[in-house]
Amino acid sequence: MKYSQTFIPTLREVPGDALIASHRLMFRAGMIRKLSNGLFAYLPLGLRSFRKVEQIIREEMDAIGSLEIKPTVVVPGELWKESGRWDSMGEALLRVKNRLGVDIVISPTAEEAFTSIVRDELSSYRQLPLSLYQINTKYRDEIRPRYGVMRGREFIMKDAYSFHTSEESLDEHYQAQGRAYRQIFKRCGLTVIPVKADSGAMGGSGSEEFMVESEIGDNTLILCKNCDYAANVEKAECKPDYTPRPSLDLAKTAAANTPPVEKIDTPEVKTIDELCAFLKTDAKSFIKTLIYKAVNIELDLSSAPGCKNLVKNTTAPGAPASYREAFFAVAIRGDMDVNEVKLAAALKASEVTLAVETDVNAITGAPVGFAGPVGLESVPIIIDHSITGMADAVTGALEKDKHYRHVAFGRDFTPWLTVDLRTVKAKDCCNHCGGELYEKKGNELGHIFKLGKKYTASMKVSYLDENGKSHIPLMGSYGIGLDRTLASIIEEHHDEQGIIWPVSVAPYHVIIVPIKYQGSVQAACDKLAGELETAGVEVLLDDRDERAGVKFNDADLLGIPWRIVVGDKNLANGMVEIKRRSEKEGRLISPAEAVTEIAASSEDAE
Amino acid sequence: MKYSQTFIPTLREVPGDALIASHRLMFRAGMIRKLSNGLFAYLPLGLRSFRKVEQIIREEMDAIGSLEIKPTVVVPGELWKESGRWDSMGEALLRVKNRLGVDIVISPTAEEAFTSIVRDELSSYRQLPLSLYQINTKYRDEIRPRYGVMRGREFIMKDAYSFHTSEESLDEHYQAQGRAYRQIFKRCGLTVIPVKADSGAMGGSGSEEFMVESEIGDNTLILCKNCDYAANVEKAECKPDYTPRPSLDLAKTAAANTPPVEKIDTPEVKTIDELCAFLKTDAKSFIKTLIYKAVNIELDLSSAPGCKNLVKNTTAPGAPASYREAFFAVAIRGDMDVNEVKLAAALKASEVTLAVETDVNAITGAPVGFAGPVGLESVPIIIDHSITGMADAVTGALEKDKHYRHVAFGRDFTPWLTVDLRTVKAKDCCNHCGGELYEKKGNELGHIFKLGKKYTASMKVSYLDENGKSHIPLMGSYGIGLDRTLASIIEEHHDEQGIIWPVSVAPYHVIIVPIKYQGSVQAACDKLAGELETAGVEVLLDDRDERAGVKFNDADLLGIPWRIVVGDKNLANGMVEIKRRSEKEGRLISPAEAVTEIAASSEDAE
Repeated sequence: MKYSQTFIPTLREVPGDALIASHRLMFRAGMIRKLSNGLFAYLPLGLRSFRKVEQIIREEMDAIGSLEIKPTVVVPGELWKESGRWDSMGEALLRVKNRLGVDIVISPTAEEAFTSIVRDELSSYRQLPLSLYQINTKYRDEIRPRYGVMRGREFIMKDAYSFHTSEESLDEHYQAQGRAYRQIFKRCGLTVIPVKADSGAMGGSGSEEFMVESEIGDNTLILCKNCDYAANVEKAECKPDYTPRPSLDLAKTAAANTPPVEKIDTPEVKTIDELCAFLKTDAKSFIKTLIYKAVNIELDLSSAPGCKNLVKNTTAPGAPASYREAFFAVAIRGDMDVNEVKLAAALKASEVTLAVETDVNAITGAPVGFAGPVGLESVPIIIDHSITGMADAVTGALEKDKHYRHVAFGRDFTPWLTVDLRTVKAKDCCNHCGGELYEKKGNELGHIFKLGKKYTASMKVSYLDENGKSHIPLMGSYGIGLDRTLASIIEEHHDEQGIIWPVSVAPYHVIIVPIKYQGSVQAACDKLAGELETAGVEVLLDDRDERAGVKFNDADLLGIPWRIVVGDKNLANGMVEIKRRSEKEGRLISPAEAVTEIAASSEDAE
Repeated sequence: MKYSQTFIPTLREVPGDALIASHRLMFRAGMIRKLSNGLFAYLPLGLRSFRKVEQIIREEMDAIGSLEIKPTVVVPGELWKESGRWDSMGEALLRVKNRLGVDIVISPTAEEAFTSIVRDELSSYRQLPLSLYQINTKYRDEIRPRYGVMRGREFIMKDAYSFHTSEESLDEHYQAQGRAYRQIFKRCGLTVIPVKADSGAMGGSGSEEFMVESEIGDNTLILCKNCDYAANVEKAECKPDYTPRPSLDLAKTAAANTPPVEKIDTPEVKTIDELCAFLKTDAKSFIKTLIYKAVNIELDLSSAPGCKNLVKNTTAPGAPASYREAFFAVAIRGDMDVNEVKLAAALKASEVTLAVETDVNAITGAPVGFAGPVGLESVPIIIDHSITGMADAVTGALEKDKHYRHVAFGRDFTPWLTVDLRTVKAKDCCNHCGGELYEKKGNELGHIFKLGKKYTASMKVSYLDENGKSHIPLMGSYGIGLDRTLASIIEEHHDEQGIIWPVSVAPYHVIIVPIKYQGSVQAACDKLAGELETAGVEVLLDDRDERAGVKFNDADLLGIPWRIVVGDKNLANGMVEIKRRSEKEGRLISPAEAVTEIAASSEDAE
């Protein structure tokens, strides 16, 4: 392709709203242009690399037997009502009424569409396992789209969904997807951090996110310096400070050795730090107690204190029954923080938030700051494992300016539920190897997930087994964002001058830069381009009437992996200058050798 | 690909709403499934053929130097307000407010998006000509989607847009697109009827539709039995009954030989037929006069009778000024019909409709049925060319139960405007060669169109010429509906048993059908499949444990161009049975020869 015959509007200036390298470089290299906030058009150069990422993903999906289909982008709202997500998805779901008043949705993801297609065709266990995927347009009505295509409103996603008769079958395909994802990112030249969402302790991983490190990442990752443990902070676990966890017997002994509870005056003491100073103790002796409001709680609360008047209801046909809202006292050791994602997961709640002041007053009988588990009967008490070992602790006394001391777990209060609620931090100890944990910011490129029967049950999918008995299939979902993957490749492969494409996803393999495109240089360039193309190499020939410096700068900006400079002087000696984008210095070489060397490197990238 | 490892849910039954062959067969062959009215998912088999059509289109676009880009499907409403189509498009344009209250549009077509992209990058004449295309999702909020993917709400369209400095440059690319379209349809195995929208008489064709004949076609086509003239009835022209058209002098002579106008009683006479019987004449002697209401008229009416109080307004910034509504008397010879598309085009109006009775009363001073041009001064009189030759004619006398006879054009009335308004019918004479015209129903698959400055002017696109002077570029647009093209291939290539794919767009080139997939037959099938695939042939191997009859029926239904039957008996003689889908009888041939023959036919189709 001749440069003058394509459309690569490069820019010297950096757009003001481009805060990250990929956004800046995709604009400057003429790969994308903005149609409006969060809506980007790929221009010819950008689309070429985009299609290569797409093709890599397609090949790896095909290789594990997933079958490509193409549902619509616009889907009936009815399906989302069946799954319950019409209500549970927030405003990021773009809902529209068509001219006949029928609800439709611009797909942000396609569990419903795929489940509906399979539901209509599935009858026998012999049709399973079945894995289907699409590479298609998605829309998420982001409030604050930014970072270019890294977080746009419209984007392309590969999303696969699989259906199975057994956990083993689901796990087998889930593992195959995991391997395919590793292969995809490797072929794209990306260093990803696979992050398992839960530990082996919970009986097999059901979710894995593929992250890339990024200063502007949405996610905080917890990694171990010693082993390969990596987790999203939302789900990260760590070793407790004591091992093994105290048994109830040990707790009883500790409690027996603790003086009786004593109520003490703590005037003007507002924070844990002030309290520690006042009592000459440290935060580890304090039982921090927070009042939370949770909504859409699926956990059974029939035996929970203060909950006997709550009624479990179904908000939509097919949706699981849940309590609309309830309050909980959540206790954790004073030097730790409650992880609200873990709390919501423990309650099977759609959301948890700290209770407002008036609710705290009503529940604890005191202002905010004096909650504690001792004597609290109006709400269920949920404690983190860190509380189970505590004796001789300090906690709020449900009264203004009063605290209890000498509080012992098991003697002075009994939790309704004990779970892991701790937010893991840098320097905590790895739960697997005891190594030191550290933090990174990351962006999610892909996610594989065992959904179980969430959608197949609510949308009433079934098949008959070999005995004619009806079952609900298990399901998995597997997504990759293409735009974000492409941008992440640039984040990892660039320098001050521009992009440095891995050959596998480069828009062209080689750029031929004539010092001046005329006479014998022109003839040599055309011949070289022809020979490279015959050898299967994708060539961009910079035939523009520009100064050599401008052409060199653009070649560096576009990031084409190989550059061949053709000039009169070297050509007289039968030589051209060949240089990898990643190298500082070029080499003189004959055109024939250049073809051989570049063709070999392009083939390796296939 | 083994049949058992893909997902081809074939059906014996025909869905009740499937009225045409392609809809029935795409369902029965498991190519598509319905998500809801007008929304279809392509399953693996359907998607394979779909992608081949897509690839053919892509190759032909690339071959004429059009560059692929990928704008978003969801685009800012702001762009549609700039072009004026936010107002002029009907309810088929799906408009949405996003969560921030910003208007967005689910693209039905992309003149605005492409014009906006080019506007931002265009500065110099040296960047032109520029042709860009996309193959992307479109949405049209059809009230009554039907015929499967032939008229769905969501569909995929290739749409290209080109930008030029001159008519010659635009025409050159327009012609190249026309040739590419012919090549695309040829490669898809489709017989298309290219229909030029206007005749050579108007100074070069600016629009060409590519139609396929279809009993359920949206369009009526007028074709010549003698030459290659083909036109949409909306724009078709024909030879007048007299040649050459009467000059004004001849008309004057005719008028001079006509007795003076005479008002006659025509009691109880309602229709033209009754009037002809009453007066013992025929419809060709009658001047039929209809009162029309037109809306959004851009034509200048400042000199038109009865229009001096009308005011031209602009409804939206950038939109051309127009009169909101006006009435017109439209006269045509009694045996002809007014073509309302031609009338609207002549008035540059967005719509024309017959006036309601009260308006007719007010304008003509008489009930419906007595309008005529003589003495009518309240509205402009527009006549078809058929009127210019008339003398001694009959027409309504603007009075109940009264007609005029001996009416002569030019003597008794003067039109404000004379244009071609005639609806051409079968048996009219071709304007080019005088041959007999006939009618066909057709469906539009593609459309190429010279837009001129319609969008570039309203959206303020400009470039500087070699002298630094600013100009507005000319634009062309070129669309093909992929889904409709695919369905039309099936319409043209099927029989009672199923689809008969042309090799170029077949989902697989060959289906191998073992009588029973076991033992030496299985080994032979696997070997044959391997050899075919090595030779570049796409193979579907029916490894299902089904009766041979079921497998033969499915092979016919799916329409794979070649079928190879492998059975014990023939295999013992070193033979397999090979049959084209289009042939009745198979032939015995060695597996090696089968590979050679089928590989050759697949290569031809590339």
